Amino acid sequence: MTDELDLHALRMRTALRQALRAAEAGEVPVGAAIFKDGHLIAQAHNQTETLKDATAHAEMIAITQAAAAVGDWRLDGMVLYVTKEPCVMCAGAIVLARIPLVVWGVSDPLRGGAASRFQILQSETLNHRTDYLTGVLEAECAALLKDFFKARRSSPEADSPPGAAVV
Amino acid sequence: MTDELDLHALRMRTALRQALRAAEAGEVPVGAAIFKDGHLIAQAHNQTETLKDATAHAEMIAITQAAAAVGDWRLDGMVLYVTKEPCVMCAGAIVLARIPLVVWGVSDPLRGGAASRFQILQSETLNHRTDYLTGVLEAECAALLKDFFKARRSSPEADSPPGAAVV
Repeated sequence: MTDELDLHALRMRTALRQALRAAEAGEVPVGAAIFKDGHLIAQAHNQTETLKDATAHAEMIAITQAAAAVGDWRLDGMVLYVTKEPCVMCAGAIVLARIPLVVWGVSDPLRGGAASRFQILQSETLNHRTDYLTGVLEAECAALLKDFFKARRSSPEADSPPGAAVV
Repeated sequence: MTDELDLHALRMRTALRQALRAAEAGEVPVGAAIFKDGHLIAQAHNQTETLKDATAHAEMIAITQAAAAVGDWRLDGMVLYVTKEPCVMCAGAIVLARIPLVVWGVSDPLRGGAASRFQILQSETLNHRTDYLTGVLEAECAALLKDFFKARRSSPEADSPPGAAVV
C-alpha cells in the first residue's frame, strides 16, 4: 500500500509541475496528467485565460491529448491525476471517456463535481463508474491554490475565472 | 410569446441541420448553435467518433467556437440551442461559460445533466445560473435520435458512444 501511495505521489508530481506552469501563466493553478500502463501519455494545465475558453480545464485538455495518443475516445486502463477535485464538467468528461480511476490532491467541498458536492463519478445512472483516490500531495496542491487566490484578492481585478475554487 | 417561440424554433432549425450532419457521419445525432444579438456565431455537431474524443459533444465545440468568435470565455448575452438536453459535462461547461439561456428540443430523463437527472444549470452552489426552455421542435429532435438508435440496434456493432441517450 505504501509503495502504491508512493507511486501515486510520484505521478502527482507531474500534475503539480503542470499546476505550477498554470500559476506562472496567471491561470488558476490546476494541473493534470494521465498514465497508461505506467507511461505518461498526457499532461496539461488549466488554460482558460490563455485560450479564452471556459472549457480549457487541465483535465479536459489532458483527456483530449490522451484520446489522440491512443486514437480512441475510450480511455480504458488509464489513471488521471489532477491537483484539485474535478468540477462537474470535467467529472462528466471523465465518465464519458470511461477512465477507471482518478486521483486528486485537494477536494473542493463547495463545488467539487466528482464526489464532494456532486457525485458524478459514482452515479448509478451514467454509463460508467470511475473510482477515485483523494488527498495525494494534498498540502502542496492546496498551497498553490491558496497562494493564487490570496494574490488575486489583493489585486484590483476581481472577476473570478471559470473553475475557480474557494480553497 | 408566439413570436418568441417562432424565433426559438427558427434558430433550433440551425441546430437540427447540424444534428443531421452528425447522423450522416454516423455520430449520435445532436446539433448545437449559439446566437448573440440575433446573430449566429457558432454551430457544431457531435463528433466523438470522428475526432475520437469523448469530449467532442456538439455543445462543447460550439462553446469553444463562440469563445473564439468574441475573444472571451464569458459568453454573456448568448443563447445556446441544442437538439437534446445537455449531459453533465456540457451542462457544467454552459455554467462555466456563463451562458444565460439554453434552449433544447428533447429532454433526457435518464441521464440529462441540465435539469432532468442532474440539475446543474440551476445549482445554487455553482458560480452562475442558466435559464432553460425545453421542447422546441421536440418531435423532430427526438425522431432523429430514435432513428439513429433503431438503426444501431439492428447493426452488429453494439458499443454505445459517449453521450448516447436512451430516447
